Amino acid sequence: MRILLTNDDGIYAKGIEAIHLSLAAEHDVTVVAPETEQSAVGHAITFLDPLRVKPVQRNGQFFGYALSGTPADCVKIAITELMKPPPQVVVSGINLGANVGVNVIYSGTVSAATEAAVLGVPSVAVSMDSFDATDFSSATEFIPKLLRLLEQRGLPAGVTLNVNVPNVPYSRVRGVRITHQGGMRAVETYDRRSDPRGAVYYWLRNKAILADPHVDADSTVLSRDYISVTPIHHDLTDYPLIDTLKTWGL
Amino acid sequence: MRILLTNDDGIYAKGIEAIHLSLAAEHDVTVVAPETEQSAVGHAITFLDPLRVKPVQRNGQFFGYALSGTPADCVKIAITELMKPPPQVVVSGINLGANVGVNVIYSGTVSAATEAAVLGVPSVAVSMDSFDATDFSSATEFIPKLLRLLEQRGLPAGVTLNVNVPNVPYSRVRGVRITHQGGMRAVETYDRRSDPRGAVYYWLRNKAILADPHVDADSTVLSRDYISVTPIHHDLTDYPLIDTLKTWGL
Repeated sequence: MRILLTNDDGIYAKGIEAIHLSLAAEHDVTVVAPETEQSAVGHAITFLDPLRVKPVQRNGQFFGYALSGTPADCVKIAITELMKPPPQVVVSGINLGANVGVNVIYSGTVSAATEAAVLGVPSVAVSMDSFDATDFSSATEFIPKLLRLLEQRGLPAGVTLNVNVPNVPYSRVRGVRITHQGGMRAVETYDRRSDPRGAVYYWLRNKAILADPHVDADSTVLSRDYISVTPIHHDLTDYPLIDTLKTWGL
Repeated sequence: MRILLTNDDGIYAKGIEAIHLSLAAEHDVTVVAPETEQSAVGHAITFLDPLRVKPVQRNGQFFGYALSGTPADCVKIAITELMKPPPQVVVSGINLGANVGVNVIYSGTVSAATEAAVLGVPSVAVSMDSFDATDFSSATEFIPKLLRLLEQRGLPAGVTLNVNVPNVPYSRVRGVRITHQGGMRAVETYDRRSDPRGAVYYWLRNKAILADPHVDADSTVLSRDYISVTPIHHDLTDYPLIDTLKTWGL
């Protein structure tokens, strides 16, 4: 397949190199990824500034194109301008850090994949439940298998598969579960500090994790060393509430 | 009610001043808004950099607090740190430019409201279908009415009301419709240009609008001079697809 590969940790990250290696043997892979780390940028799009594209080498070989923009920018410019014909599937990752629960809405990794779905290209976001992983095999073994199935079965327009893999070697993964986006979220606080001139600033800090105990939640499955696959889309409508609001007499 | 007011056009924008004027007569309103324009930042959150808060005057009076961050940052820091007790409702807007169809996922205005819902505070995003409106009455007359109903009826946890108002005076609004987020989207292209030194850059351009003809879509209702109210949430799961994926044999 013609694959566009991107991420939000930036084109020089370890995760994108690992997944590139596992996909390039079997597929026609084009890398367009942010020049610098873009974590937690959500679905930001650059339109007030110009974007620049530059070829990047890794290990002495051409690796892909670095873009001076966000993950969603990478997908938009690759599909509409740089790749002709456009890709058949977009893979975003491997992100360091799980994208489960409420984290999904902050994630540049997931937003890149969602942007592909908006533009009509099926997509897969893949994140690992670790900030310092060195063994990416649970992703690099699983994703090629998932892509083969995706090619056979197809996905409805607008759908992204949000994949999270545990931080264990593939041989120790206990299985795969189809999940829903759970309610897990970080409870956050701000540190209030003073700079060297005495001026106050604030810095965001995670205080605790509020778990979602549901057995089919993405975070639950992942914490039990299963791979979590959640189908997601970008229609945010809360359909059950429509009828309620109609009774408000607006 | 104790209201947190924010936006994505920045604390000096006309829209936030107009809605502030209409809400402050009846409610206890605190403004925490981005220091600079933050359009299309989506749900970006700042955690790699510190944030600064500074008081801002408008028309010679204290107006609110400017934050060196994104709309979602404003809501997060206001609810968890700056406002004690926290607000009962968050209002984000008035944005210049409709947030309907796929635009919803790029919108800083909507993401600010979604962040409030994540943190358990009901919220309303309000956008006007114009980039250069001067008469904001369709929003400034409707939103106070909506807030009175919201206070009486309540909203389930995690829900945001995404309100879009037509660019006509309130007296010419044809009514209110409860809608779903439609499929309207911009068809985009990139201009490929050369800078004065001959280096190539790209700039995002809207080529056309792909409409959603559905009679209950947000964009359809808005274009007919009705106010559109869409209940939205942040669970992106595509539930109908879960059973399909279970048959893939992953």
